[in-house]
Amino acid sequence: MGKNVLLAQSGGPTAVINSSIVGAFDAAVKSQGVDKVFAAVGGIEGVLNEQLVDLTAIPDEKIRRLRCTPSAGLFSCRHVLPADMEDEEYKRIFEVFEAHNIGYFFYNGGNDSMDTAMKLNKYAKLHGYDVRVNGIPKTIDNDLFGTDHCPGFGSAAKCIATTLQECAHDTFSYPNSKTVIIMETMGRNAGWLAGSASCARYNGKQIADLIYLPEAVFDLDRFLGDINDRLSQQTMVYAVVSEGVRGADGKPYFSSSKNTQDKFGHHQLGGLAAALAEEVKKNIIKRVKTVNLDIAQRCASHIMSKVDHDEAYLAGARSVEFALEGISGVMAAFERKSNDPYTVDVVPLDLTLAANTEKTIPTDWINKEGNNINEKFTEYVTPLIQGEVAIPYSNGLPDYAVIDEPVIEKKLKPYS
Amino acid sequence: MGKNVLLAQSGGPTAVINSSIVGAFDAAVKSQGVDKVFAAVGGIEGVLNEQLVDLTAIPDEKIRRLRCTPSAGLFSCRHVLPADMEDEEYKRIFEVFEAHNIGYFFYNGGNDSMDTAMKLNKYAKLHGYDVRVNGIPKTIDNDLFGTDHCPGFGSAAKCIATTLQECAHDTFSYPNSKTVIIMETMGRNAGWLAGSASCARYNGKQIADLIYLPEAVFDLDRFLGDINDRLSQQTMVYAVVSEGVRGADGKPYFSSSKNTQDKFGHHQLGGLAAALAEEVKKNIIKRVKTVNLDIAQRCASHIMSKVDHDEAYLAGARSVEFALEGISGVMAAFERKSNDPYTVDVVPLDLTLAANTEKTIPTDWINKEGNNINEKFTEYVTPLIQGEVAIPYSNGLPDYAVIDEPVIEKKLKPYS
Repeated sequence: MGKNVLLAQSGGPTAVINSSIVGAFDAAVKSQGVDKVFAAVGGIEGVLNEQLVDLTAIPDEKIRRLRCTPSAGLFSCRHVLPADMEDEEYKRIFEVFEAHNIGYFFYNGGNDSMDTAMKLNKYAKLHGYDVRVNGIPKTIDNDLFGTDHCPGFGSAAKCIATTLQECAHDTFSYPNSKTVIIMETMGRNAGWLAGSASCARYNGKQIADLIYLPEAVFDLDRFLGDINDRLSQQTMVYAVVSEGVRGADGKPYFSSSKNTQDKFGHHQLGGLAAALAEEVKKNIIKRVKTVNLDIAQRCASHIMSKVDHDEAYLAGARSVEFALEGISGVMAAFERKSNDPYTVDVVPLDLTLAANTEKTIPTDWINKEGNNINEKFTEYVTPLIQGEVAIPYSNGLPDYAVIDEPVIEKKLKPYS
Repeated sequence: MGKNVLLAQSGGPTAVINSSIVGAFDAAVKSQGVDKVFAAVGGIEGVLNEQLVDLTAIPDEKIRRLRCTPSAGLFSCRHVLPADMEDEEYKRIFEVFEAHNIGYFFYNGGNDSMDTAMKLNKYAKLHGYDVRVNGIPKTIDNDLFGTDHCPGFGSAAKCIATTLQECAHDTFSYPNSKTVIIMETMGRNAGWLAGSASCARYNGKQIADLIYLPEAVFDLDRFLGDINDRLSQQTMVYAVVSEGVRGADGKPYFSSSKNTQDKFGHHQLGGLAAALAEEVKKNIIKRVKTVNLDIAQRCASHIMSKVDHDEAYLAGARSVEFALEGISGVMAAFERKSNDPYTVDVVPLDLTLAANTEKTIPTDWINKEGNNINEKFTEYVTPLIQGEVAIPYSNGLPDYAVIDEPVIEKKLKPYS
């Protein structure tokens, strides 16, 4: 009898994160070397608390629905493992692994989750545990280093561009009303999501007149000048702003709670569009609309990109296959082979390279004014938003799955 | 050779307003009594300015794409016809009708558009013009009198409920973080859209713990009390607020620009969720998220309700058929025959009854605490959000149509 596989998720949700879990699940079930596939409920905290469910005991119909369900279906956490490798947390985690005969652990998440996977792999090697640990990437922010792009990004990009198109049809239907529309996107320190708004078209023309990215210096006066400039030539001006735009001092231009940082040292962002709208109203024109999808942009499985959905599945599957082949301490990374036709390879990337390094937009993909992207960006992002997924519906609404059973009996004392 | 048909749209966009136009177009083209089908660009202002396009000269492929395109594809306006029936505007409109041999005019819009259609019908009868004028209803607010529901509402309701489900999967994936989530919906003086959030389910259970409607008195202290109450029993609290909630004095509780009214005397609403979030942060808990789809909720054709899409088409087609049968001065209204199976009739409703009267939620569909709807509301709304529409995509994004040609040569002097 082979060892068991343990899957877990962490960090911010995406529309396709569960597609990765199902990819990993299917690859594990298919293999000869694996016994059962378990999930930890609530990421690494679920491991610490020995909160496990048996995915192999779930009806296949529900697993297929899980694949189309947004947001961490295994529940998530934001938990940093201690820098001190002798900390009790590591000991506990590997006690849980041993108690449930876990031979493979896969952590599905962003930057910080890759850090967790890296540390667990290191601990296993240091202490001679036969547990292989790999990372499965996900983040709508697309800021993971060493991979062409991340599962989750394409779907968020498709949601943003679709919404921008629909809002343009809305506002353009009043052709005589001078209007400024400011759309805010997520993305933290990287402008990938804001840039993806460039895909949106109205009558063949790019809708986003201006795109402000964290990779270019943001200046309020220049922003107002840009708006003024465009308004003198056209009736509607569409500006897209990344939540993480920063001033010349390198600090985020706006934070709704300027003094708070999350556990990873990230600033809480959001609310920038509303703040900029006030400035436009004060200085230029009263008719300003804002579009801020907020968390809706990262969990819109009903408008998933098929390419993203498929690649997320592949990343999960390949991560398991790497482990079964004996490779541990890697993240399944994408290498783009060609844009026409679009093809990618999935390759193992050392977790020490993937963790804690942010990937931002190359400078030469941004126009020289720093207020839009250029065709290099569009070429990059276009293949990632292709295709639609027919998700299951029930009673008029998406039929999403919640995975909270069957619970596996605990074998250890509670952890405190 | 028969007379020509003229179609126009007005008021706020919906996801299915163009489905009505295509329904009217198809019915007109099919009939023997009609020569060509024209559209006025920009509603009644397009008529005044003699800005017409010839829909019959547009390739059918584009007409089919128009059917799936959100927002007024013929462009919109907000223009009130004068109360004085001897005003020059009426004379001009009927000059344009005569110049282009218009025998049938159909106005596709909400309350105010029905008022316009009513006045034009009255003018035609007063002055002996052989022009039949009917209204085709649309409004996401669902507040038109005399019809069971309005085209546009079901799709906005589906968009809202889908987004709420997806956001619930997002926030519920962090099961240990006490969070308050406030979703704001449109709807003006009627709570139909806020109420439709009740359809959203997580693991079979209604997500919206609290729903605040303009039909019940809104009180901030009671709102905060409700939130507090729920937070003592559960980790996440989901509150949905209609933009138009009002205090005991009957005035809107919140307006982002309290002193401005639009041309129809409507208050500009929006921003309520953000304002309430500040109150919750100040008084109860710091972790508050807001979801405000804003204009995106009324133009999300990518998540249209098929029932709504089909009924919008039917309303357009029947409106034309009524006119061809000699009936003028009516709006195509829905009469619900049954919920199981769901069936509706389309009947002519006198425009004098439809115009300028708002339909709100019956009191006995709201719970006695005034902070949620009951099962009567859910029974009403559920059939309206059923089914999905396979819209055309191109290059990863919806392939929407813009109708701005072929332009019909002007025959009159410019109107000023």
